[in-house]
Amino acid sequence: MKNITLLGATGSIGMQTLDVIAEHPEDFRLFAISFGENIEKAKIILERFQPEKIVVKNEKVKKELFSPSNNTSIEILVGEEALVEVSCHPKTDVLVNAVMGSVGLAATLAAIDEKKQIAIANKETLVTAGHLVMRKAKENGVDLLPIDSEHSAIFQALNGEASSQVSRIILTASGGSFRDKSRADLEEVTIADALNHPNWSMGAKITIDSATMMNKGLEVMEAHWLFGLPYEKIDVIQHKESIIHSMVEFVDKSVIAQLGTPDMRVPIQYALTYPDRLPFSQTESLDLLEVGKLHFEKMDLQRFPCLQYAYDAGKKGGTMPTVLNAANEIAVDLFLKGNISFLEIESVIEKAISDHQSIEDPDLVTIQEVDQSTRMRILSQYK
Amino acid sequence: MKNITLLGATGSIGMQTLDVIAEHPEDFRLFAISFGENIEKAKIILERFQPEKIVVKNEKVKKELFSPSNNTSIEILVGEEALVEVSCHPKTDVLVNAVMGSVGLAATLAAIDEKKQIAIANKETLVTAGHLVMRKAKENGVDLLPIDSEHSAIFQALNGEASSQVSRIILTASGGSFRDKSRADLEEVTIADALNHPNWSMGAKITIDSATMMNKGLEVMEAHWLFGLPYEKIDVIQHKESIIHSMVEFVDKSVIAQLGTPDMRVPIQYALTYPDRLPFSQTESLDLLEVGKLHFEKMDLQRFPCLQYAYDAGKKGGTMPTVLNAANEIAVDLFLKGNISFLEIESVIEKAISDHQSIEDPDLVTIQEVDQSTRMRILSQYK
Repeated sequence: MKNITLLGATGSIGMQTLDVIAEHPEDFRLFAISFGENIEKAKIILERFQPEKIVVKNEKVKKELFSPSNNTSIEILVGEEALVEVSCHPKTDVLVNAVMGSVGLAATLAAIDEKKQIAIANKETLVTAGHLVMRKAKENGVDLLPIDSEHSAIFQALNGEASSQVSRIILTASGGSFRDKSRADLEEVTIADALNHPNWSMGAKITIDSATMMNKGLEVMEAHWLFGLPYEKIDVIQHKESIIHSMVEFVDKSVIAQLGTPDMRVPIQYALTYPDRLPFSQTESLDLLEVGKLHFEKMDLQRFPCLQYAYDAGKKGGTMPTVLNAANEIAVDLFLKGNISFLEIESVIEKAISDHQSIEDPDLVTIQEVDQSTRMRILSQYK
Repeated sequence: MKNITLLGATGSIGMQTLDVIAEHPEDFRLFAISFGENIEKAKIILERFQPEKIVVKNEKVKKELFSPSNNTSIEILVGEEALVEVSCHPKTDVLVNAVMGSVGLAATLAAIDEKKQIAIANKETLVTAGHLVMRKAKENGVDLLPIDSEHSAIFQALNGEASSQVSRIILTASGGSFRDKSRADLEEVTIADALNHPNWSMGAKITIDSATMMNKGLEVMEAHWLFGLPYEKIDVIQHKESIIHSMVEFVDKSVIAQLGTPDMRVPIQYALTYPDRLPFSQTESLDLLEVGKLHFEKMDLQRFPCLQYAYDAGKKGGTMPTVLNAANEIAVDLFLKGNISFLEIESVIEKAISDHQSIEDPDLVTIQEVDQSTRMRILSQYK
């Protein structure tokens, strides 16, 4: 029986993690959760899973949550320090970090110090502070288990083989909502169009990131840190069926790929059961006869400049990925609020990274300062 | 530095093994070889690789081989016992068993007793005596490293994960020389047509076996033994590009596949370097952009009855696989000599298995008797 602490329980990854926990009541127990705004969903989770602890962002949420109908044996904690507290709690066996944004970083770093098994879906952790996180993980001999389907695919394909035996990794990209549109077509697209992803059911931010290909760019940077590979050894290929989730080519030219129906719960479960596996009844078996064909196309960096920006920022290193990530978050938010057009997402990011002088090997405080100042600068332009 | 003993050096697998050894002179040294008839090729091998020992089938071959131009420091041994002797020799680190037919079995069994690393390309070993070989391998804690691209793919995809975590394995089949022909078309095909395999460069026997799909049937039986899986968990799927070499589906529905350009030297090298890998410069990197599409089709057991025979014989067990294998060897030989038509290969095998009463858990002597009597009975009908 593993005790799970789930940060970001009401988000897309969080809810899918709960599906996995629910299927295996004898293997997993929900020990603690955190959530952001969605009090109604949180109440359902508390009712169903009866965790010991719950972390909320402030006293207001605590009051709203705490009604006579709730089980009063659940301890309610408040604030970011409480995220660290539950993540490092002696009862926590596995930390699933599925919070959005940089708020998850301190919890991950603290849990590494406690040598917890850590399943990580929080991109910002590695994108902005990969050098700090991986240094600490190495010092503590902790594996970071990726939840993203692409990184889980690579982790499973590697299955313990050393990075030194890898000649390249090949991330697959579905192409997102607009893969069949030209740059000219993109001038007219709406928010609803952008949210309509062909293969994956995901949150709004990541669905937009898939349409701009920034999602793949962030994945490239995560892969760089997770697997200790230079950017030259990380390729992206368009594969519209999202059946091959990613691949590893070894020095002997043997390629190992992980495949499956597009269902995030499979990589989530793998991160929880690692190094073992458990049956998972809620998803379909891959039927290649039904699929019939798998297609592969070159990823066009002119068509998807955000992917190029990510490679550039990753290679530059230092605080440049933080700027890229912060600019992207703000730009996507502005787009979702109807303040900028889809193509302006790209120009906001491009301007932010060309305006920035990267600071090498930044500490957490520097990363947070750069993150904040990038956001403020962009927001001030769109008020 | 690993000392390699290579049985069947002048055959297709043997020569490709030598390519691998030649690329890595600091990692591998050819310690001993055996060969059958091809004295000219053998002379070239001796000249180039200077093994310590060579095994020949009789005194006549020994005399032909032994000329003043050869290096006289090479020890020449004669007969089947000598195959066992070199396989078990203290200097042998890795045994590559690439001889055709049942002659390789004794060497494999003896090398298992000596806990050698064994790379196995000899199908008959597992098809006819899988129960004996695997029992002994288990007792001695020896891994049998498959050289066949399909089994190597599964071995690499498993990468140490337990058979108990496997829900099925999926062997891919190119479809062979006649995949686009109907049963009616097959009545007219010639030996030259049959030898023209679309993807792989292999010996004559295995190329015909690919056209009848018996090769895949033998692979199904080998997989049954190598990976300890019931026949119900072994699927075959047609995949005409031969890029995905085979796949493993785990209980969590995650599928791991091994891919590459069709080149036997990659699985051969993996068996030699296992559990590590080495660069291999002689083959092309897989370029999925160039390939563009991968196709998958249902394997039609009416179209390819030999595959059905193999499943049936495998499930029946005992001496039935020995009969299937012996009948197939003789039938293919008769076809290659122009004595029977392509479709008669199937009827010869079908008759042999329906005439046979299987003997359960046979020992080696029984297997050899059944093998011989099956051959004699068929040959007596086609004299």
